[in-house]
Amino acid sequence: MPGSRLNADLWITEYITPYDVYHHGVTRVLAYARTEFQEMQIVECGTYGKALVLDGKWQSCTGDEFLYHEPLVHPACVNHGHPERVLVLGGGEGATVREALKWRTVKRVVMVDIDGQVVEACRQHLPEMHQGAFEDPRTELVIGDALDCLDDSAGEWDVIVSDLSDPIEEGPSFKLFTREYFAKCKRALKPGGYLVVQAGPTSPVEMAMHVRLVNTLGAVFGNVASYSSYVPTYAAPWGYALASDNPIDHRPDPARIDALLADQTTSQFRMFDGITLLGMLQTPKHIREAIQAETEVYTLVAPPKFFGKGVATEKGE
Amino acid sequence: MPGSRLNADLWITEYITPYDVYHHGVTRVLAYARTEFQEMQIVECGTYGKALVLDGKWQSCTGDEFLYHEPLVHPACVNHGHPERVLVLGGGEGATVREALKWRTVKRVVMVDIDGQVVEACRQHLPEMHQGAFEDPRTELVIGDALDCLDDSAGEWDVIVSDLSDPIEEGPSFKLFTREYFAKCKRALKPGGYLVVQAGPTSPVEMAMHVRLVNTLGAVFGNVASYSSYVPTYAAPWGYALASDNPIDHRPDPARIDALLADQTTSQFRMFDGITLLGMLQTPKHIREAIQAETEVYTLVAPPKFFGKGVATEKGE
Amino acid sequence: MPGSRLNADLWITEYITPYDVYHHGVTRVLAYARTEFQEMQIVECGTYGKALVLDGKWQSCTGDEFLYHEPLVHPACVNHGHPERVLVLGGGEGATVREALKWRTVKRVVMVDIDGQVVEACRQHLPEMHQGAFEDPRTELVIGDALDCLDDSAGEWDVIVSDLSDPIEEGPSFKLFTREYFAKCKRALKPGGYLVVQAGPTSPVEMAMHVRLVNTLGAVFGNVASYSSYVPTYAAPWGYALASDNPIDHRPDPARIDALLADQTTSQFRMFDGITLLGMLQTPKHIREAIQAETEVYTLVAPPKFFGKGVATEKGE
Amino acid sequence: MPGSRLNADLWITEYITPYDVYHHGVTRVLAYARTEFQEMQIVECGTYGKALVLDGKWQSCTGDEFLYHEPLVHPACVNHGHPERVLVLGGGEGATVREALKWRTVKRVVMVDIDGQVVEACRQHLPEMHQGAFEDPRTELVIGDALDCLDDSAGEWDVIVSDLSDPIEEGPSFKLFTREYFAKCKRALKPGGYLVVQAGPTSPVEMAMHVRLVNTLGAVFGNVASYSSYVPTYAAPWGYALASDNPIDHRPDPARIDALLADQTTSQFRMFDGITLLGMLQTPKHIREAIQAETEVYTLVAPPKFFGKGVATEKGE
Repeated sequence: MPGSRLNADLWITEYITPYDVYHHGVTRVLAYARTEFQEMQIVECGTYGKALVLDGKWQSCTGDEFLYHEPLVHPACVNHGHPERVLVLGGGEGATVREALKWRTVKRVVMVDIDGQVVEACRQHLPEMHQGAFEDPRTELVIGDALDCLDDSAGEWDVIVSDLSDPIEEGPSFKLFTREYFAKCKRALKPGGYLVVQAGPTSPVEMAMHVRLVNTLGAVFGNVASYSSYVPTYAAPWGYALASDNPIDHRPDPARIDALLADQTTSQFRMFDGITLLGMLQTPKHIREAIQAETEVYTLVAPPKFFGKGVATEKGE
Repeated sequence: MPGSRLNADLWITEYITPYDVYHHGVTRVLAYARTEFQEMQIVECGTYGKALVLDGKWQSCTGDEFLYHEPLVHPACVNHGHPERVLVLGGGEGATVREALKWRTVKRVVMVDIDGQVVEACRQHLPEMHQGAFEDPRTELVIGDALDCLDDSAGEWDVIVSDLSDPIEEGPSFKLFTREYFAKCKRALKPGGYLVVQAGPTSPVEMAMHVRLVNTLGAVFGNVASYSSYVPTYAAPWGYALASDNPIDHRPDPARIDALLADQTTSQFRMFDGITLLGMLQTPKHIREAIQAETEVYTLVAPPKFFGKGVATEKGE
Repeated sequence: MPGSRLNADLWITEYITPYDVYHHGVTRVLAYARTEFQEMQIVECGTYGKALVLDGKWQSCTGDEFLYHEPLVHPACVNHGHPERVLVLGGGEGATVREALKWRTVKRVVMVDIDGQVVEACRQHLPEMHQGAFEDPRTELVIGDALDCLDDSAGEWDVIVSDLSDPIEEGPSFKLFTREYFAKCKRALKPGGYLVVQAGPTSPVEMAMHVRLVNTLGAVFGNVASYSSYVPTYAAPWGYALASDNPIDHRPDPARIDALLADQTTSQFRMFDGITLLGMLQTPKHIREAIQAETEVYTLVAPPKFFGKGVATEKGE
Repeated sequence: MPGSRLNADLWITEYITPYDVYHHGVTRVLAYARTEFQEMQIVECGTYGKALVLDGKWQSCTGDEFLYHEPLVHPACVNHGHPERVLVLGGGEGATVREALKWRTVKRVVMVDIDGQVVEACRQHLPEMHQGAFEDPRTELVIGDALDCLDDSAGEWDVIVSDLSDPIEEGPSFKLFTREYFAKCKRALKPGGYLVVQAGPTSPVEMAMHVRLVNTLGAVFGNVASYSSYVPTYAAPWGYALASDNPIDHRPDPARIDALLADQTTSQFRMFDGITLLGMLQTPKHIREAIQAETEVYTLVAPPKFFGKGVATEKGE
């Protein structure tokens, strides 16, 4: 009999746009909870391993999270050169901290996540993600508000990694994608420190938020770089924005980077090295042009509103 | 009322894997036919414009096809430097020919597609794709078999572009992804000419075919490069393999490339330029390592069998 | 490999509720048009044969339309006993007329449908539906507005069959499910004639419209009966309302009905006979109770708004 | 913005046929387990309340289970007239026992279910289903094999209710839909007792199993009746087969039934009463004719194989 086999009865649905929907088949539900802040699921998927899903939005899965987390952390660290103190905002699964800890220069990683129940569930069910990062003596986990934490620190961090959920309207994080928030981040950095922000999809029809985020960071920092990484389960290339008052090297020499990584890290990378970094930093023409054409910035008065891939947190209509 | 709006009643379903399914909403059916070779639909989609669908498989759509067609054609042409004669195998929509014609050096583009009915429908319904390419006096359209055409030509082409459907079992094209076929392509090229092959997805769980194709080309040509481009509607980064007995420059200088493009092309590119090319050629570490580890090649005896995203042509089980 | 096979790439989606969605796989598109009034598709489906789809809503398919059309026409005709003049409002596929013509007593069937292009496409592509009904000398097809037609006739019909699309907001038919419209129908009937209305789903969560329609008819006619028929492709039992100032026999003797049918019809029924009629008229307790509890009626000021299973006609938000 | 809203991120998929798929949106996962026998989920749905799902197959949900369980139990009890001892085979949710206990004549209900973990989860999470039935002093719950239980009893039961999962190949229950099994049931009944079997969908394209089950029961018992009930979430009318060597009254007088129910039951029925029973027993013509035409019976050598709506238990391909 002809046909395409489907092997799941339970599906997580991602509403990419009102005309584009992506289904991931679930083979096992490992954890489910309604926390104080959001709906959480940890599931086992057919193709991509285990996944964390918050408010119906796919956060990351063990099968391709390295394509998200390595690009999130290492370009900032490489540009810094010898990061010692790293602040991770969000990052529930622990994979962002895991990456930061690969730098032998790193003495302290503080991770601030608002939802302790999610962090605890990830700790228990997603060891492939954190790989013991929470137990590392250099790690400090703070359950609390990223904004409070930033207000409490000044000139303290070499690298800040903003690994927050997309700014869905009515969701908890949309304020954290604004000029005001980025100014707080800058104050919390040591002079010349680096901030990196997960900055939304960069597919042609979805890149408006990414472009404006890059422009918003440009209103706060002297230098900004946009780069992307393929993350198949997001159904889009995923964008990052790296910002600093120190220079960002857009044309790094791969051999020099590889020597730096060999010297200062554990070298346990799956996708990241000098060649990969050089490639990522060559932002394609259409994205470069869109960034150049952008004039608006996100502020608390006019924050971003991401198309909701998930429905669970939408309220009040 | 909360929720995610969906705006379509009719959906094209892509079976990416048995656990991952992608739906694209159709707003209008422009053409439908069962041709001698396949089932064809030309549809209007909500987000990405008009699309060609063959045997249930998404071929390309006007909203992001530039992310597929510009990387398909120009790296080969740039490496050649002054392409005059280009052979396009497949390429029904005419967008591949359109890109080749952007080179002022090009004197002749022959496109060989097996399905005249599909080409005619694209000509009529997808002017955004071909943009008059079929009417260009340098273009010759041949309705016929790519293999016959290759057998008839020797030492004739500067660049050959293999823009064929994925090698679904029982589909028409799986023989055209083998060592024997690539040897025919090499014979048809002028000495030192360049062959580029659309070479399947490069997401971690799907890249086995890409990796083996690169290895298969390496058994025939002296030099091979793997590179990828983000194509959102494919739900995966898409891979290409560029092959030649002449060198392939993996670290081109963007300024030199831009000067070459300014000199020899119409410069009407949306995503392609020197920076983009430099970026694409920096294959990420995990793909590089998979290619280095590959030992098998595809042959007529052991051809590729792609997971069928479409069901329409599958027979005989 | 385990799994459930799916055999289609193209799917018609029915949004039953915001939490219940039904997909029917399409194997061939037979006709597609945007008419003056609606979007039309005639498709071939994997399981249930050929189907007519209007504005994304499944109208009927050859595999189970007998479960819709036989119950639509014959209870009214049986209660009348010797119908001679039948008016069909809507009924594009011709299957409603086909059923009426099975009555040898019938001398004239007038069918009024607003969309000539849909009727013509059905005539061409759905011969299984109309079975030549449009060619019967007793049939007259009027392309026009049901309301105009009712205004033009008084005391003329033995049976009126209201076979209109569901009253989706902004759709063409919501006015035709109101007290005012039913009063026009009554005026167009001969004294004691019978009106039957397709009257929406009768599943527990969806039956509100059905219940209010029955009550609305009760405000116009002396007697009303609610009955339902299983139509699998609607994913719900489907309701009808039969109304007249003459009596409706809720407990007919099957043998007597079979004798009547043998005498006055061609007897070519697939699901309908005396036993089936007796069964259909025994409305289950929960529907009976809901009807008894209903107090509101639909009027032009407060017409029904059906949950849109289709999106194509929705406008203006 | 136009469109159809969907309000869920997590969906249970029912593969009705390879071309017909039904999705039910899940708003909350209440319980999830892989038991010794099957995969179990108890979920909260948007439209139909809470549901039990086994091996990916929708078992019942609080919003329309009364349309399944009342017709399952009461026609057998009414035909018996004064049931005292009832055996329920399967019936994990406890709703079948709940219905049997509505008969004041009933002194003992034994429920035999193979999966104690499922029963316990239903007891905890689905009080709307069992409504305390497990605590009733007349109820005895046996965790074990239905076949063993039947072998242990002879001439013991007034009514046996076979409320087993569909006979999916490789599933646990396909042997329990055979002539040999029904003969065991007959032996376990008191002389003239009644057996009722949930007997699969009765939609035209899916009714083959139902028809053959009715015929199989006819090979064992003197009298068999087929009847159906609308269960919207099954996307099909659902069939039952009632069998006995005593008569089955196909044309019961509603008033007499209502008097019997008033006398001998708690009268707490949502859909069942005399009129409903009369209606259900009037099997539509096309089903009657299919039953008359059937010649085969299911045996242990040739058991039924139901199209798998779920994939979880399928093995060994």
